[in-house]
Amino acid sequence: MGEPSRVSRVVVTPVAFADPPLLNVVGVHQPWALRAIVEVHTDDGLLGLGETYGDDAQLARLRAVADALGGHDVYDLVGLRRLVTTVLAKETGGTAGASFGGMLDVDSAVDVVYSPFEVALLDIQGRRAGVPVADLLGGRARDEVPFSGYLFYKWAGHPGAEDDAWGAALDPDGIVAQAQKMVDDWGFSSLKLKGGVFEPEAECEAIEALAAAFPGMPLRLDPNGAWTPPTSIRVAERLAGTLEYLEDPTPGIPGMAEVARSSSLPLATNMCVIALDHLPPAVAVDAVQVVLSDHHLWGGLKRSALLAGICQVWGMGLSMHSNSHLGVSLAAMVQLAASCENLTYACDTHYPWKTQDLVVPGALSFAGGSVAVPRTPGLGVELDRDTLGVLHEQWQVCGFRERADTAYMRSVEPGFEVNTARW
Amino acid sequence: MGEPSRVSRVVVTPVAFADPPLLNVVGVHQPWALRAIVEVHTDDGLLGLGETYGDDAQLARLRAVADALGGHDVYDLVGLRRLVTTVLAKETGGTAGASFGGMLDVDSAVDVVYSPFEVALLDIQGRRAGVPVADLLGGRARDEVPFSGYLFYKWAGHPGAEDDAWGAALDPDGIVAQAQKMVDDWGFSSLKLKGGVFEPEAECEAIEALAAAFPGMPLRLDPNGAWTPPTSIRVAERLAGTLEYLEDPTPGIPGMAEVARSSSLPLATNMCVIALDHLPPAVAVDAVQVVLSDHHLWGGLKRSALLAGICQVWGMGLSMHSNSHLGVSLAAMVQLAASCENLTYACDTHYPWKTQDLVVPGALSFAGGSVAVPRTPGLGVELDRDTLGVLHEQWQVCGFRERADTAYMRSVEPGFEVNTARW
Ligand SMILES: [Mg+2]
Ligand SMILES: [Mg+2]
Repeated sequence: MGEPSRVSRVVVTPVAFADPPLLNVVGVHQPWALRAIVEVHTDDGLLGLGETYGDDAQLARLRAVADALGGHDVYDLVGLRRLVTTVLAKETGGTAGASFGGMLDVDSAVDVVYSPFEVALLDIQGRRAGVPVADLLGGRARDEVPFSGYLFYKWAGHPGAEDDAWGAALDPDGIVAQAQKMVDDWGFSSLKLKGGVFEPEAECEAIEALAAAFPGMPLRLDPNGAWTPPTSIRVAERLAGTLEYLEDPTPGIPGMAEVARSSSLPLATNMCVIALDHLPPAVAVDAVQVVLSDHHLWGGLKRSALLAGICQVWGMGLSMHSNSHLGVSLAAMVQLAASCENLTYACDTHYPWKTQDLVVPGALSFAGGSVAVPRTPGLGVELDRDTLGVLHEQWQVCGFRERADTAYMRSVEPGFEVNTARW
Repeated sequence: MGEPSRVSRVVVTPVAFADPPLLNVVGVHQPWALRAIVEVHTDDGLLGLGETYGDDAQLARLRAVADALGGHDVYDLVGLRRLVTTVLAKETGGTAGASFGGMLDVDSAVDVVYSPFEVALLDIQGRRAGVPVADLLGGRARDEVPFSGYLFYKWAGHPGAEDDAWGAALDPDGIVAQAQKMVDDWGFSSLKLKGGVFEPEAECEAIEALAAAFPGMPLRLDPNGAWTPPTSIRVAERLAGTLEYLEDPTPGIPGMAEVARSSSLPLATNMCVIALDHLPPAVAVDAVQVVLSDHHLWGGLKRSALLAGICQVWGMGLSMHSNSHLGVSLAAMVQLAASCENLTYACDTHYPWKTQDLVVPGALSFAGGSVAVPRTPGLGVELDRDTLGVLHEQWQVCGFRERADTAYMRSVEPGFEVNTARW
């Protein structure tokens, strides 16, 4: 242990996995979700894992960093960030504009490129010390991490394909049926509906149908900024006794602050506060009362722990955002959530919507909607090389290279316009 | 490495070391400074160190926690904080009112009692993993940590004792001579004057004499809240081109905010913002532009790292506060400072004012006013059992059991009144 572990080899593997036609404010999920798996190997035989977005722009950036990482001390996270910043500054197009399929405006790619490498180095640090990553983030504050059931309006299947196992959900009855399956199969004890798809009254009716079907179940609605501030205020009044929080009803910090001033319902966000720099202006006007952390977006686990600390100090609630993801991301989310004393709400996850994973089964499983925090070293998961190969082959042949919910929706409904601030 | 290291034995040793008659707003340093050394031993033969205040109230609290710590997992910092909170709630007098000799109002003893145990557990974590503590706090952002030379008005010696090696410093010439010795012996490239002793004009003259004697040297003045806001504004105008910051000119967040609104000189504090809870009200009115961290006071190294992160996010400067301390505290200060990317000012230290230490010499040494960050595991220092014994014997016979600068001053000048907000 006298010598530091140093990076000997980095492998970036793009993967694709089947994704149902989940509807949202900018369109609909494509048939294949794209992710990248980062493997960091060390000269003393350790392997750390990270998972992130897998569009072509992100892949190019990941590979550029991977090429520069040889010899890096696995504890040198400050140097890692400097390295990522330097490498991205040299890339064509500079550091601006990570790709999120039109859903988010991300100022800088540094945080999103840094994240999977930081996670992999923390995985190695944990394996080296024989402790879970949560122990490196300030210690384990809980033994299991609660997740919410993430409901979506959806088509029965992708156009031209067979119906999927979930079937259609395009009205309150469909959402309640989907919720029942989600609760029966996974045990969730809170539910979130992705809105921004239909006009607000229809989505309020779906929430009210959920409240009637699942009395006492904490509920959330997230229209991804589909509404104006006045509409948001009207919905917040209607659902004040029904929701635990309303997520991103309207775009931007000023709009959210306007809604917050008129509503007792806590407002949550993963859209207007998505980086540390956004906190001071949001706090100054009390725009949001709950922040959804996301280590993929916020620049890794340590920065997300900093966000958690800031939420604790400023009395803001803390929850966790999710994009379509696999088991390496789930492990990192669980380790982070385990270390956050103030995780005041169950975390989001898209995990039930996929049918394949690439980690060895058994390390992370849902019981009563929660995942037990692994006690094994590092993230607590291992790659299943066979399924990794299968998901990489799917990436090779699937034909998708970036997330483009709007373009895919327009291939089905040519006149589709995004619903941002539409109502 | 499969099993966690668990605490097997904790030793709390009170120590005393000779301290010169340094003058401040509440009186004068007593002839002996009191500290406590915390040793945490584990069942797998590791030893972690911590250092903190050593008055009787603190000692009783440290011992109560020490008695309850057996079997504790060295990575369980969340549990450590719960344990400290529980133990202190049971102690007579509850958790309020840590003792700082009248200098500070501390709401809660939890942070100050938790700190040395957290430092000791991080020392063990670092030794276990074979890495310096800075690596556990986010990684090393610098290889050496700059300190400022800490100047004091002082008597030539304690009443009834021989003059000390520094001699008297009671006017600008005395302060310049003291500064010259400090710079010659230690190589500091910034200087801080502890004020609040004489009327403000006299202290301004001392600063101006320093500026004339050391052209270009960054200078600070800290009267520990001796002035009213109007006086503070007047001094800030006079010294705007001379100081890098003005520290705690006036007590309290509202007063500091009043001064800040009228002055371009950055205001620093280790008095009105001394816990995480104080940050939101201070930030809301932009009361301070520089925060002096102090892991002894803020609840350990991880919370101090959180403070550093908050300063970075909110664009506040970061420096570091010091009380009279020994080498274990210096090691922890160096490891923390090494991990802070945004350490924008040299740290304070009382280290030159003592004549004895209890760590094995050589691990921490000043060159050019800076300390090289140890690359050895943990804090990077070992106890010298012989000098620990000597300093403990000094504690046994010195006759002091709490810091009481005002009472000691009154034993010399019976009519002395503290200078807080006096001018
Ligand atoms: Mg959202
Ligand atoms: Mg001070």
